[in-house]
Amino acid sequence: MDQSDLMHHYSQQFNADLETLRTRVLEMGGLVEQQLEKAIDSLKQSEAELGEMVVANDYKVNALDVSIDELCAKVIALRQPTASDLRLVLTVIKTTADLERIGDEAKRVARMAIRSAKTDPGPNLYLRIEHLGDQVRQMLHRSLDAFARMDVDEAIEVAHDDKRIDREYESIMRQGMTYMMEDPRSIPLLMDIIWSARAMERIGDRCCNISEYIIYFVKGKDVRHTSLEQIEQEFGRE
Amino acid sequence: MDQSDLMHHYSQQFNADLETLRTRVLEMGGLVEQQLEKAIDSLKQSEAELGEMVVANDYKVNALDVSIDELCAKVIALRQPTASDLRLVLTVIKTTADLERIGDEAKRVARMAIRSAKTDPGPNLYLRIEHLGDQVRQMLHRSLDAFARMDVDEAIEVAHDDKRIDREYESIMRQGMTYMMEDPRSIPLLMDIIWSARAMERIGDRCCNISEYIIYFVKGKDVRHTSLEQIEQEFGRE
Repeated sequence: MDQSDLMHHYSQQFNADLETLRTRVLEMGGLVEQQLEKAIDSLKQSEAELGEMVVANDYKVNALDVSIDELCAKVIALRQPTASDLRLVLTVIKTTADLERIGDEAKRVARMAIRSAKTDPGPNLYLRIEHLGDQVRQMLHRSLDAFARMDVDEAIEVAHDDKRIDREYESIMRQGMTYMMEDPRSIPLLMDIIWSARAMERIGDRCCNISEYIIYFVKGKDVRHTSLEQIEQEFGRE
Repeated sequence: MDQSDLMHHYSQQFNADLETLRTRVLEMGGLVEQQLEKAIDSLKQSEAELGEMVVANDYKVNALDVSIDELCAKVIALRQPTASDLRLVLTVIKTTADLERIGDEAKRVARMAIRSAKTDPGPNLYLRIEHLGDQVRQMLHRSLDAFARMDVDEAIEVAHDDKRIDREYESIMRQGMTYMMEDPRSIPLLMDIIWSARAMERIGDRCCNISEYIIYFVKGKDVRHTSLEQIEQEFGRE
């Protein structure tokens, strides 16, 4: 092999590594999506078994988290990426950290579902939390899609979804507290519903984080503490 | 400059960069500690003003987060660290992410303090939450100290603290729910107390994360999803 063949080979190998990283993140994302879906279904269908599967499978999410991080460290050490290649690796490190925590929140929802499956379904707050769950699930799907295509416009849409989810969460909180005051016996059940809503709201925040990393990768700018309005103005669709 | 001088100069510069990274993390840690201290004092003393300072100063934590991350990317791109040098940079990236979120939780506690400063202090749950706040504050201090000295034994102690804090949090939750059932009018105030307790419990988790990164840096092993018992067996004091 002469020098230029070697360089070509090296760069092919490098690209393959980066591609592997992206694929692994999407694999982890798919697993986390499944976990969230099962957790919400467990809540909807009062199926404790589904919830128990989520709790039992969380270790798989954690294992992917560790192995992707290891791969990132290896790629940095061996390939010494710079510019957008380095941004990709950093984006992967941050994205998997959020995916792992979305997995934890799904586990929390599953635990509530396991507990509440044994009690009578309460007031119509259940419908609202199921609706919130569906919205959050779609949001996660959308942010993984944005990651797969490194699509800034879609990432911005995810941030808009998050605003809606925050409003819905606030409203569920208020309604839950009103119900508690009306019927104190329902407090334990309502607290579980409120915690589930809270877990979903946190998942929304984490999807939003992933969007910010996508913008960082594509545009080279860290927008984590920038307002949505500013982000749209600078990077949004014309 | 001959080749060896150049290498010496290069390695000196590299060490200076790594030292800067550590110093910046400790600076950020100091700021987050102050924020948490003020938030808890605001709760203790029913001083809305202190809480407002915390909310107003959160942007400083965020700014440090962004600038340390930038510095990390620069160090990777320019110095191409490997082995323990690379682990240090990755540890810094992860630690600042948790410190930033501890800052967010402090802001949440401050917001509750601002709201509850206007109402009469409720049942003796206040004393317990203040106690929890003090414990969490000490835990953060300890984990920053462990970071400063990259001390695995102290990092393990932090993980022990976290177990205690989890138990205390669970107990406050149960007591809060009992009070709610006894006096439904106190529900909004008690919910604020419970949210504050929750924020503190989350801070404990994040201090625990920082401990795990310290162990990763020193021992080269990712222990994020390993039980405390296993960590102690493998890396604890004889």
